[in-house]
Amino acid sequence: MNDNKKPNPGCSTATYRLFDDKADFAKKAEGIAVGLTVGSWTELPEVAKLKMEKYLGQVVSIKAHEPEGAAAGERYADITIAYPDLNFSRDIPALLVTTFGKLSMDGRIKLLDLTPSSDFLSAFPGPKLGMSGVREQLGVTDRPLLMSIFKSVIGYDLPNLREQFLQQALGGVDLIKDDEILFENPLTPLERRVETCIAAAREAEQTTGQKLIYFTNLTGPTSKLRENALRAIDAGANGFLFNVLAYGYDALAELAADRAINVPIAAHPALAGASYPSPHHGIAAPLLLGKLTRIAGADLSLFPSPYGSVVMPKEENLAVQAALIDPSLPLKASFPVPSAGIHPGLVPLIMRDFGEAVVVNAGGGVHGHAQGAAAGGRAFRQAIDAAKAGIGLADYAKEHEELRLAIERWGVREA
Amino acid sequence: MNDNKKPNPGCSTATYRLFDDKADFAKKAEGIAVGLTVGSWTELPEVAKLKMEKYLGQVVSIKAHEPEGAAAGERYADITIAYPDLNFSRDIPALLVTTFGKLSMDGRIKLLDLTPSSDFLSAFPGPKLGMSGVREQLGVTDRPLLMSIFKSVIGYDLPNLREQFLQQALGGVDLIKDDEILFENPLTPLERRVETCIAAAREAEQTTGQKLIYFTNLTGPTSKLRENALRAIDAGANGFLFNVLAYGYDALAELAADRAINVPIAAHPALAGASYPSPHHGIAAPLLLGKLTRIAGADLSLFPSPYGSVVMPKEENLAVQAALIDPSLPLKASFPVPSAGIHPGLVPLIMRDFGEAVVVNAGGGVHGHAQGAAAGGRAFRQAIDAAKAGIGLADYAKEHEELRLAIERWGVREA
Ligand SMILES: [Mg+2]
Ligand SMILES: [Mg+2]
Repeated sequence: MNDNKKPNPGCSTATYRLFDDKADFAKKAEGIAVGLTVGSWTELPEVAKLKMEKYLGQVVSIKAHEPEGAAAGERYADITIAYPDLNFSRDIPALLVTTFGKLSMDGRIKLLDLTPSSDFLSAFPGPKLGMSGVREQLGVTDRPLLMSIFKSVIGYDLPNLREQFLQQALGGVDLIKDDEILFENPLTPLERRVETCIAAAREAEQTTGQKLIYFTNLTGPTSKLRENALRAIDAGANGFLFNVLAYGYDALAELAADRAINVPIAAHPALAGASYPSPHHGIAAPLLLGKLTRIAGADLSLFPSPYGSVVMPKEENLAVQAALIDPSLPLKASFPVPSAGIHPGLVPLIMRDFGEAVVVNAGGGVHGHAQGAAAGGRAFRQAIDAAKAGIGLADYAKEHEELRLAIERWGVREA
Repeated sequence: MNDNKKPNPGCSTATYRLFDDKADFAKKAEGIAVGLTVGSWTELPEVAKLKMEKYLGQVVSIKAHEPEGAAAGERYADITIAYPDLNFSRDIPALLVTTFGKLSMDGRIKLLDLTPSSDFLSAFPGPKLGMSGVREQLGVTDRPLLMSIFKSVIGYDLPNLREQFLQQALGGVDLIKDDEILFENPLTPLERRVETCIAAAREAEQTTGQKLIYFTNLTGPTSKLRENALRAIDAGANGFLFNVLAYGYDALAELAADRAINVPIAAHPALAGASYPSPHHGIAAPLLLGKLTRIAGADLSLFPSPYGSVVMPKEENLAVQAALIDPSLPLKASFPVPSAGIHPGLVPLIMRDFGEAVVVNAGGGVHGHAQGAAAGGRAFRQAIDAAKAGIGLADYAKEHEELRLAIERWGVREA
């Protein structure tokens, strides 16, 4: 079974993977198209049908996967349904509730993709700066950017945070982000934290000559996010980290669309693992951490790297990246930031896997360096330089002590 | 392995189910307790440990399930970690990001439960009315409440909605809710919809003598939810339906804590199926649709019933109910509303399974009645009366035509 209709204009489409050993997939698809839109169809009188047709969902395609002698649990279909834009408002909660609200609870079904109509998308300005805007702000266009994360933040005071920040900045990183679990607290309250870190960034700049964006964690009650953001900007903030899935995509969309919040926002994937890893349930990572995050306006999107211990196969990782930079979407690209388990010996592989549309994001790989965080940053920059120049890391390390020590500790991984 | 410590006071605990065929669960647990709090521990100098100890997570218990000769994928442990309240602010995003933000992506791990400290809970007023307040508003204390849902809403205009509403109300239902996929739209805009439905409720009351709460779907941009709620209340709204998971728990918590929003809120489980069904990932239903929904302040919580086609075993259903009414939580109880697949022939079973702390919630079971929705409602009320009186439905149906027709159509299900 594999029929393909062109969805009506003025429709947004959703693609699901539906596992079922016996179901008539065509009937199932028809049930979704009707049930999640007009509610009932076949029993409507003809005159009502004429009136209701423009609200009716449409089965666009059904691609069944039912190999001969399939084992129990193996049979599925990828089903695409078109939903008339008339049925929902121009916000992500409405799009998600329409396409996957009740349906998410209806058996073994996973939302693979959404393709919002251009009309729907026109309500979203998307990333304010995006990948190119962030590069422009930093004046770095010819290499992957380097981000680092604080080692430990909870329980530490401003002088400690300042010192951690300074060491990272001196290593030549472009971006430094708060830990996503750093909330408003008496030791490092928002405005003081911003002032302290931005001052440390200026100090480091005198040595490195480099600009730096500090992504401070934007937290608090939903209704205070804007106010907190503006307070932080007044204190000098030049970037925000945001736990988008804990607040909902719409909270991010409102922050991103707000002209007063004129700094880049990095979306953190906290809680994403509650939704993407199961093959049978949830929302696929390229949609969850890619397309929707970009539509909501994140300038950068963090997601689990394929190199660490977290659960995301490389193929899925690359699909997240693709969704973040896909030129067919009429929005700026979001900077892909694969995270976790990154050390300098991985840089050539990262650049082979992701090209230059990538932020190299390291925590332990910076702080764990034998000579400290500044040297850890330098080791990464050396690895990037080597990879750019097409020189093997081991060779390059002969003349670059920080890289040599990093490789001594973590090795080089080629694949 | 089964050690049990008492968590420190001033801690909130999280319990996870972690599947791993080989891991040293004690080491894993220690890694979580340290990694999600102070970041590093063993390598800290003693003086730093003294200073940092109050921020350090603690392993409370590890209950390993590792039967002899366990098949691959079978081995797991339920691990409880205590997180010092010092580490996070008093909001659900902070609690979730702390306990399950990054960890959700770290292998096969599911968040089973959270036990926030009393200090954390003290920041949440919880349900404004709760189960007893809703009963009081309606003046119904001696039987399960009856809720019905519109049959079809998209593409229908106000006169049609009014007629659907009136028929449901005439059947003697206590609660009527919007479809969760009804968003702001030109045919039935928020205030007109509220006026129309509340007028129909008054009209029906003259026949039935019954009060009725109408849960209108509260939608729109996050920053406009409050304003939309107040507009609707001005137009006469006496209840709201809210897609809490699409907006985040904090959006609900802010609405519920708002004194100006002085009407009950029913939380809809839309999108919940993206998180609870997998045994290996996500957030368990009793937490997702039970405890957190109640802490956030929902007066009613809808969740998939064990009788319909959706995926939730009865045991899990009853655990959701238990979390919604658990008297050990210092908050009003939220009314449990198991939904989907409900017809009058199920009423005695529902009352056996859930007792009286339940709303009988029907869609097709009201609208599909041979004599229409009003008769459908009456059939449910008759079934409730019969069950209350301990009379078998088949017997009672002999003298109650609506119930008889309902049983003719859907039968009676005893277990
Ligand atoms: Mg972190
Ligand atoms: Mg519905």
